[in-house]
Amino acid sequence: MNAIFSRRSVRQFLDKEIEQEKIVQILKAAMQAPSAYNQQAWEFVVVSGRENLEKLKKFSPYTMPLNTATLAVVVVCPKDTLKVPGMWEQDLGAATQNLMLEACDIGLGSVWLGVAPEQDRIEFLQKLYDLPENKVPYAVVALGYPTQQDANKFVDRYDETKITYVK
Amino acid sequence: MNAIFSRRSVRQFLDKEIEQEKIVQILKAAMQAPSAYNQQAWEFVVVSGRENLEKLKKFSPYTMPLNTATLAVVVVCPKDTLKVPGMWEQDLGAATQNLMLEACDIGLGSVWLGVAPEQDRIEFLQKLYDLPENKVPYAVVALGYPTQQDANKFVDRYDETKITYVK
Repeated sequence: MNAIFSRRSVRQFLDKEIEQEKIVQILKAAMQAPSAYNQQAWEFVVVSGRENLEKLKKFSPYTMPLNTATLAVVVVCPKDTLKVPGMWEQDLGAATQNLMLEACDIGLGSVWLGVAPEQDRIEFLQKLYDLPENKVPYAVVALGYPTQQDANKFVDRYDETKITYVK
Repeated sequence: MNAIFSRRSVRQFLDKEIEQEKIVQILKAAMQAPSAYNQQAWEFVVVSGRENLEKLKKFSPYTMPLNTATLAVVVVCPKDTLKVPGMWEQDLGAATQNLMLEACDIGLGSVWLGVAPEQDRIEFLQKLYDLPENKVPYAVVALGYPTQQDANKFVDRYDETKITYVK
């Protein structure tokens, strides 16, 4: 599980396309996540092509990584399929993290760009991809081959003060 | 990243304590997760001992795995430290998933037991662990050594119909 410890947010990417089998691999990883009642309420809009990425960029002010990303995955919740409605953000959080860890593991860089619960971002993306109201965009992951070879490297975030033991 | 694909919900555990270094290892993994604005707004209550686990069991009706679990981690959000309040559930989803993947990788089984946004579960846990109002329990992960050797094994969840390509 080296990827857990070496993964970092990568925001600068090479001008090099991601191979289709790698795209499938990260989507497979996302779909292996646990979910409340195993509801698996996630869908993915996979965006490539400079023109499409430029359009996507406008969904929020914090999308600089999309300037050089060669791929973006919009993680979407089909809300009408939820069995446990209150836990969709937790489920999709786990799926998004799986996707990013797998990306790191196969040599890619990625960064999580926030969408939900910002209503303006949700609506922008729904309009851009012709999504009905019940399909709610949750996050955008920008991806590509990192410009720096050591873009994913371990930086310790362990903080013992955040732990309480009840023995 | 074998753990992404082999991890499953494990609900039956051996009567065998988890070593302290493994406990630290899974908490380290949790704290390596990405978070909005790198806010890292997570804390962990680590519960062991049969008596303590029995008390914890009462937080929800769906806690059967705590009958045999030898450890539980209560993932808590210190809400007063949030820089991006709307994304705490996403951040803690990533952290919880990291914890469970690392557990799988070092031979443990785990299952995610839902807490937030159920207010009665949140309040029960706040009372049990003397947490102030601003510390909000998010999820409980039940852990232990699995009874079945192949408890973590690959079951394919990949579903191509959930993917749309915008090229």
